Amino acid sequence: MMNKLMAEFVGTFWLVLGGCGSAVLAAGVADVGIGWLGVSLAFGLTVLTMAFAVGHISGGHFNPAVTLGLVIGGRHDAKELLPYWVAQVVGAIVAAVVLYIIVSGQSGFEGVGGFASNGYGEASPQGYAMVSGFVTEVVMTAVFLIIILGATSKGAPAGFAPIAIGLGLTLIHLISIPVTNTSVNPARSTGVALFADGPAMAQLWMFWVAPLIGAALGAIIWKVLSSDD
Amino acid sequence: MMNKLMAEFVGTFWLVLGGCGSAVLAAGVADVGIGWLGVSLAFGLTVLTMAFAVGHISGGHFNPAVTLGLVIGGRHDAKELLPYWVAQVVGAIVAAVVLYIIVSGQSGFEGVGGFASNGYGEASPQGYAMVSGFVTEVVMTAVFLIIILGATSKGAPAGFAPIAIGLGLTLIHLISIPVTNTSVNPARSTGVALFADGPAMAQLWMFWVAPLIGAALGAIIWKVLSSDD
Amino acid sequence: MMNKLMAEFVGTFWLVLGGCGSAVLAAGVADVGIGWLGVSLAFGLTVLTMAFAVGHISGGHFNPAVTLGLVIGGRHDAKELLPYWVAQVVGAIVAAVVLYIIVSGQSGFEGVGGFASNGYGEASPQGYAMVSGFVTEVVMTAVFLIIILGATSKGAPAGFAPIAIGLGLTLIHLISIPVTNTSVNPARSTGVALFADGPAMAQLWMFWVAPLIGAALGAIIWKVLSSDD
Amino acid sequence: MMNKLMAEFVGTFWLVLGGCGSAVLAAGVADVGIGWLGVSLAFGLTVLTMAFAVGHISGGHFNPAVTLGLVIGGRHDAKELLPYWVAQVVGAIVAAVVLYIIVSGQSGFEGVGGFASNGYGEASPQGYAMVSGFVTEVVMTAVFLIIILGATSKGAPAGFAPIAIGLGLTLIHLISIPVTNTSVNPARSTGVALFADGPAMAQLWMFWVAPLIGAALGAIIWKVLSSDD
Repeated sequence: MMNKLMAEFVGTFWLVLGGCGSAVLAAGVADVGIGWLGVSLAFGLTVLTMAFAVGHISGGHFNPAVTLGLVIGGRHDAKELLPYWVAQVVGAIVAAVVLYIIVSGQSGFEGVGGFASNGYGEASPQGYAMVSGFVTEVVMTAVFLIIILGATSKGAPAGFAPIAIGLGLTLIHLISIPVTNTSVNPARSTGVALFADGPAMAQLWMFWVAPLIGAALGAIIWKVLSSDD
Repeated sequence: MMNKLMAEFVGTFWLVLGGCGSAVLAAGVADVGIGWLGVSLAFGLTVLTMAFAVGHISGGHFNPAVTLGLVIGGRHDAKELLPYWVAQVVGAIVAAVVLYIIVSGQSGFEGVGGFASNGYGEASPQGYAMVSGFVTEVVMTAVFLIIILGATSKGAPAGFAPIAIGLGLTLIHLISIPVTNTSVNPARSTGVALFADGPAMAQLWMFWVAPLIGAALGAIIWKVLSSDD
Repeated sequence: MMNKLMAEFVGTFWLVLGGCGSAVLAAGVADVGIGWLGVSLAFGLTVLTMAFAVGHISGGHFNPAVTLGLVIGGRHDAKELLPYWVAQVVGAIVAAVVLYIIVSGQSGFEGVGGFASNGYGEASPQGYAMVSGFVTEVVMTAVFLIIILGATSKGAPAGFAPIAIGLGLTLIHLISIPVTNTSVNPARSTGVALFADGPAMAQLWMFWVAPLIGAALGAIIWKVLSSDD
Repeated sequence: MMNKLMAEFVGTFWLVLGGCGSAVLAAGVADVGIGWLGVSLAFGLTVLTMAFAVGHISGGHFNPAVTLGLVIGGRHDAKELLPYWVAQVVGAIVAAVVLYIIVSGQSGFEGVGGFASNGYGEASPQGYAMVSGFVTEVVMTAVFLIIILGATSKGAPAGFAPIAIGLGLTLIHLISIPVTNTSVNPARSTGVALFADGPAMAQLWMFWVAPLIGAALGAIIWKVLSSDD
């Protein structure tokens, strides 16, 4: 059990450091910056790499919504839900601390700003209302769970799941960064919200509620979809 | 059969929401937008992810032209052609509805504009005439079918087909977005045309005719090419 | 034998249509264009997709330099060298014709310009001299052959070679487009040179000589490197 | 043993020529340049391609820090540490020579400038202080080793390690190019520092010390994490 929690801690640490780190450090630099395409790739590759590295230890969730969906889908023990959530959130917070240390060493540093936090309304990257954000987070997380449950099912080719799931997260970011800065992961949202300027903490509820609803929905859709599988 | 149709519905829903969604929401944003490269990646990853997730249920077509090509190529039961087409088109339309809901929540929303629809002549992203568009759609769909039939043939390495096919769709978009905004998929074209401003509905015929011709052509080329295979 | 030549024809057709096509149609468009990164990805994905699709039929060379290197490396029958070269060059020329038809349908078309041809000196994208171009083409092709011979050797994991080789070609383009517009493939250079404005035909000799030398060099290095393999 | 050293020489040569070469030649070109996203992809693909090609010969380290971490992790013979380091550093230097020859042939050449060297403080691409750089290099290298040790462990799916490790290096660059220009590899830093203008040689110590500490740390974390594995 301790190994599993360490794996979830390390994986979620890497997800937040890599995904939010690339967004904060490299996305908006003039001319050579990586943009949202680079950030999307970074988020997906955190999951791809860690799912290959430690997925065989913990299952490679790195995301409270994923753990919930796998429990509902009958793939993971419900007793491990809360310990996994704690390990994931702690990993995300430690990543935010490390990122803060790095960022604060920049010449002319005056604060972290949004710090890659998630938001809606005024805090949405492109000004999308709360309803747009909520729908987006629910649908994206639901499809994410369908991809996860499908790619790890017995019918799918073995070994490829980390590619499908990691690049699935890349795809989700390619679509939804403009709307909410993309969460689909309450731990990721919590880690950076604690340090961000602006309304990130006040809006954090939505990035727990919507992904968890979406994950439950995705797990149920998968169960229906694969009922004869 | 119901499971197969649900899988085609979900997969085509994801193809349109992810591909057209990334184009509408994220492509043209200043400085950090994902551009056509990001949109190309998004379209390909919708197929890569869903082919891993539900490909073992329905075959993972998500595209009426692909279903036709697989029937002609002797890989899919002709009796399922029409039900598949219906599931695919309905999935595409539902995705367009969800995308409409998200987009309409943007501050200052004044209409969806082109809504990632396909077009030629005045409606071509870079002003290519109908002949250019027709040739492009036929050739791209033909090669897409050769990739699909080849990568899923007995001689090809097992398990990798979703990567070859998904990234094949990415490649097709890298080439042909400037010409027609890239269809090669009548369901994708139909879903967004219903909501788009401009001539998308009037030009929709071409994005059924050309991909279907191309798919048939690709299937025939593959049969000749692999005749001793 | 006919199947092999058809496979080489189709694969090289796709390499030139996809790689040069993405460069001509989509690379330089303002704001949303795919740039050299997109072109690099496109070239690599032509090989990745076709190596999965028809690699088990012909070996998936799509490149006269690769065929030479595989003959020298003892992996391919020398009697097939010339027929393969013919199929590859014809495929490249047909692709250039199709691309010409598409391009000439653009509103305001006034000629194809460089048409993604290769060059040095004045014709180098960033003004690199002939020596830089020659060294670049030799070294890039040599490493390309090491990747091909290594990734298809018995010691390498089975099935992954199309990924290694395709993304290897992407990498080669990421490095060397600024120098020569990247050839490493005499067929690709020949196909578009026939239609390009400028000195492409006068400089074509180098994009046969340097890749062929490089391929021979790479095959020899691999043989030494793997001598106890 | 000679084959192993040749493989490490070739692989590290390719890492520096491909990674630093894409940065020097193609990153900053106006409009169509590949940017840091392209450079990140290039670095990762050097490792992905060479790990598939020669990984079965030498283990595919191409990096003194990786060799150290694998020795500490009990995966590689300590007696080979120094010979591997020599082969890697020599490969990196030869790559820098080849890159210098190519670059110096550009019309209007006036010196190599930073030559993709690593740095902190004034020499950091975005002005990050030494502490930020040190923390970044330690953490990035530590996670890199966890990915390497995890993806090559018995529990991980076989054959996929070059993908996980290569794209892991891409991810590390997406995050940390702005901070130090990303080393995590003392050989890569040494090769280009010998030719670079500016403080690269004076700062080179950090790009040996921090990656080696990070690699040791990562190997230890992995051993704890996988203790029941």
